[in-house]
Amino acid sequence: MKNMQQPSGMPAHRYTPYHEQIRVDLPDRTWPSKRIERAPRWCAVDLRDGNQALIDPMTPDRKLMMFQLLVRMGYKEIEVGFPSASQLDFDFVRKLIDEDLIPDDVTIQVLTQCRDHLIRRTFESIDGAKQAIVHIYNSTSVLQRDVVFRSDREGVKQIAVDGAKLCLELEGMLERTQVFYEYSPESYTGTELDYAVEVCNAIIETFDARPERPVIINLPATVEMATPNVYADSIEWMHRHLARRDSVILSLHPHNDRGTGIAAAELGYMAGADRIEGCLFGNGERTGNVDLVALGLNLLTQGIDPEIDFSDLDGIRRVAEHCNQLKVHERSPWAGDLVYTAFSGSHQDAIKKGFERMAEDAAAQGKSVDEITWAVPYLPIDPKDVGRSYEAVIRVNSQSGKGGVAYLLKADRGLDLPRRLQIEFSNIVQGRTDSEGGEVTSDAIWTIFSDEYLPNPSREAEDQWGRFELREVGSSSSLGGETRLTVVLRDEQTLRDVESAGNGPIDALLSLLRAEGVEVSLIDYVEHTLAEGQDAQAASYVELELGGVRYWGVGIDHSSTNASLRAIVSAVNRGLRAAGPVQAVAEERAAAEHVSA
Amino acid sequence: MKNMQQPSGMPAHRYTPYHEQIRVDLPDRTWPSKRIERAPRWCAVDLRDGNQALIDPMTPDRKLMMFQLLVRMGYKEIEVGFPSASQLDFDFVRKLIDEDLIPDDVTIQVLTQCRDHLIRRTFESIDGAKQAIVHIYNSTSVLQRDVVFRSDREGVKQIAVDGAKLCLELEGMLERTQVFYEYSPESYTGTELDYAVEVCNAIIETFDARPERPVIINLPATVEMATPNVYADSIEWMHRHLARRDSVILSLHPHNDRGTGIAAAELGYMAGADRIEGCLFGNGERTGNVDLVALGLNLLTQGIDPEIDFSDLDGIRRVAEHCNQLKVHERSPWAGDLVYTAFSGSHQDAIKKGFERMAEDAAAQGKSVDEITWAVPYLPIDPKDVGRSYEAVIRVNSQSGKGGVAYLLKADRGLDLPRRLQIEFSNIVQGRTDSEGGEVTSDAIWTIFSDEYLPNPSREAEDQWGRFELREVGSSSSLGGETRLTVVLRDEQTLRDVESAGNGPIDALLSLLRAEGVEVSLIDYVEHTLAEGQDAQAASYVELELGGVRYWGVGIDHSSTNASLRAIVSAVNRGLRAAGPVQAVAEERAAAEHVSA
Repeated sequence: MKNMQQPSGMPAHRYTPYHEQIRVDLPDRTWPSKRIERAPRWCAVDLRDGNQALIDPMTPDRKLMMFQLLVRMGYKEIEVGFPSASQLDFDFVRKLIDEDLIPDDVTIQVLTQCRDHLIRRTFESIDGAKQAIVHIYNSTSVLQRDVVFRSDREGVKQIAVDGAKLCLELEGMLERTQVFYEYSPESYTGTELDYAVEVCNAIIETFDARPERPVIINLPATVEMATPNVYADSIEWMHRHLARRDSVILSLHPHNDRGTGIAAAELGYMAGADRIEGCLFGNGERTGNVDLVALGLNLLTQGIDPEIDFSDLDGIRRVAEHCNQLKVHERSPWAGDLVYTAFSGSHQDAIKKGFERMAEDAAAQGKSVDEITWAVPYLPIDPKDVGRSYEAVIRVNSQSGKGGVAYLLKADRGLDLPRRLQIEFSNIVQGRTDSEGGEVTSDAIWTIFSDEYLPNPSREAEDQWGRFELREVGSSSSLGGETRLTVVLRDEQTLRDVESAGNGPIDALLSLLRAEGVEVSLIDYVEHTLAEGQDAQAASYVELELGGVRYWGVGIDHSSTNASLRAIVSAVNRGLRAAGPVQAVAEERAAAEHVSA
Repeated sequence: MKNMQQPSGMPAHRYTPYHEQIRVDLPDRTWPSKRIERAPRWCAVDLRDGNQALIDPMTPDRKLMMFQLLVRMGYKEIEVGFPSASQLDFDFVRKLIDEDLIPDDVTIQVLTQCRDHLIRRTFESIDGAKQAIVHIYNSTSVLQRDVVFRSDREGVKQIAVDGAKLCLELEGMLERTQVFYEYSPESYTGTELDYAVEVCNAIIETFDARPERPVIINLPATVEMATPNVYADSIEWMHRHLARRDSVILSLHPHNDRGTGIAAAELGYMAGADRIEGCLFGNGERTGNVDLVALGLNLLTQGIDPEIDFSDLDGIRRVAEHCNQLKVHERSPWAGDLVYTAFSGSHQDAIKKGFERMAEDAAAQGKSVDEITWAVPYLPIDPKDVGRSYEAVIRVNSQSGKGGVAYLLKADRGLDLPRRLQIEFSNIVQGRTDSEGGEVTSDAIWTIFSDEYLPNPSREAEDQWGRFELREVGSSSSLGGETRLTVVLRDEQTLRDVESAGNGPIDALLSLLRAEGVEVSLIDYVEHTLAEGQDAQAASYVELELGGVRYWGVGIDHSSTNASLRAIVSAVNRGLRAAGPVQAVAEERAAAEHVSA
């Protein structure tokens, strides 16, 4: 089994491997043996990094809506803009402060380059806030030092230190505002580690970081340049080499160019970081900032409180989609339309069994399902815990099997089909989806089911049933004796009064039908109530054999006797109208169901 | 700076941490020190795992289109369906074989559960193919053994072994087809490792794997349950414990529930795997299979040939979107609409400088830019290498600075604005975007630029300029002597013939204007040609001071002299029409530009 792959012609020679650009060497790394055990300190940067990456940046109204959403969810550090670079951002920060819109336990954060006039303008913007984080940055990467700044290591470090010194000067002028500091060596992933730590340590010294007044050192994967383990190695290296580590809040800011931003955040956090900056649903420059929703709910799956409230995830999504004017993708982790959906047969079957087991276990423990440990195949979290219904969990297309169909009939119609009836009916559904394509809704399944097994209400009264119809039924029985049936029977166009007897109503009706020339025998019979209370109905499922072929029939009625009689007539009419046997096909495809291995 | 985060009320107590479910213990792991150095063996499962997860599964036409796309891109192993579970899939496999649509070096793969009648039907489906991989699976996880199969370890293992035995029996009946085997312990991530290896090794023995006829052992993260390093640990553990390792192709099949499927694939590959199964753009059940496009192009960024041709990525995307009836998200790695786009000012500035340096370096080496090492800030790959133009790289919104505006004028109009003019003009653009919001297209920037600096062609002839207009200009100069200008000058509504002299045409025109009562002095002057050849035009940029304020003017003309004269009139008219000074604002916001730290 030879590998037949060929060179592609893609110009790989134009690209330099990361390890030839930046040396990250940590053979004694410890993070791969660590586990995440509590939520990091979060900082939401939707209003800055997210906003600057939008085709249509947020209007002041949309900004405020996003800010209030983040506050409501529980974020306590929120980067609200880049006030020195955009008048809109400046005005928004002033509005938050002047209109007293910032809760006491929330700290706003504002970004600025390390440049004199920009830092001054930034301090102007936050005057009067109870507290604020001034986030200064300059780009430190090899490439940017060379191409953009045409400066050396010392010169670029001095830009950062000068910025920090100016901050300390200006801080004295803000009487009402407690100022904290964050520094980012921008394009950190393209910066030599020894240089990155040199600059960061100079900043830590300049700000005189102390445990009671720590400095945030933020190490951005401004561009994601390598596999996420390399980022984690670099974070652990910095974690070991940063000065005054007990006075530093080590922060991560991963972007997602390689699609591994979430992994980089998680592994980097295991490597010693304290804090993570990101955006809801991974909005942000290019491929986005790391997705705060994924990170938070990943914690939940491990039994860890994210300290953020995701219980109305669809509501959160609606606000974010409105503010960003960007849709959340159908497969976006924990939030997309399809992420709790199973189309494949065996997934559906397993989910159905998982739900049933959950219900049994809860009952046995005298608890509600919401209270017990979640364990349903293919569903890592209970959709209800993020405010989703179970409606979209099972959806049926041409790739689905009996499990999905049975689940939907049970969940939406209360019908608990016996297993062989599930197989028979799912083949009927699949026959339709194979020929017509597309998804089959729960309503469509009900239509197919009614059409196949129940009197069809969309037809004329005399045509709702097939050959036979029970127009009236009377039954009498003596204790321990026979049951007698008196029936007004329609047989095609003729109505007749007929009578029959048996050891029960089912037996009596079968005798009656045999007397009409229908050779029929009973194979299986199952019944359950459909709903509790006065309106209770019974559903009966009867499997009969006619001419060597088996057919199921279904009856629903307030009287369980009548439900079973209707089920028999349903099965007989189906058998009689069948052009040929359907069971052979059903057997062949019996339990054939898809799974995603 | 206390962490103010609070408990969220999310029901974390309902979830069991992964390490309490499955024990993965590998303190002497070696993968974190490994690097990826070549492309893995790929298997595209778009037609199976991808297809089964679609609201609207592919029609036969769409299936064929997807198959042909995958072949064209270079995939040599393609899972084409689950023929025993869906008549559509069966028919499609037959069509591929009967119509001879499978290239000789491509191997189709078909999935089936380990069940007697399904395996038989599967072998029927592949009869006549030159070669095929029969991919058998059964679910092995703790949860599924308990809830779904209600069987023990021995029983579930026997299902797999019986399936393998039946395959070997049936294989003899296929005379024209070389059959290879793949086995998946489905829900592997929920399976105890010692049990997973026990089942896999039983399969390896049953198939009698040999180096010349290896068996594919595929270890799916059917549900992604932990951080990707844990998956990598488990893969390295299996890699060490699998029997006949030299006769086994170790395959990965990550799903993306936690958003770390790409990382899981990369780290798992570093941990000893040989092969990766996935879908284009991460289609697949729930959050999707691992994204083959991201994995492939991640390799490219490291100088590694992905052995797949992504050079027409937009074309690939169009076909996938048509076949899947699902859009690729704007931020999907390497492929989304926005992933090469910079809206923020300093990103744009850095990209512009990066492009300029690339051009210089290429010229210095006597090569084209396409041939030299790629190094542009914020762009990990050259968009041209995946068939994208540079058009969407720089886009301007209210968060943009001078870099983006300058880039677009240069790229699309050939105008290379001096730095102070960039600042002046970007403030004019930003003023409009701040008030109007939304994105500004390159055409809109050109309109704003023309409106501000050039005679406005949308107005009446006499109103295209401001107060002054040069209707006719004659100049004469003597070698080493004066330049004399004779001008038909419009001043508001009056036309006059005027003359002037100076040490050059610019000096002469300035003298002329001073004679008209305009106190003006020259600050700066820059000129460049706009295009080569007969149609060559010159662009002139002049900075003047009027009443203590500086204004730029721009002139474009086939004659460089006329271009400079036009630029002067442009600046003077701008100065005269300015209600107040604009330069103060310009200074203040001078180089304030956004960056995503």
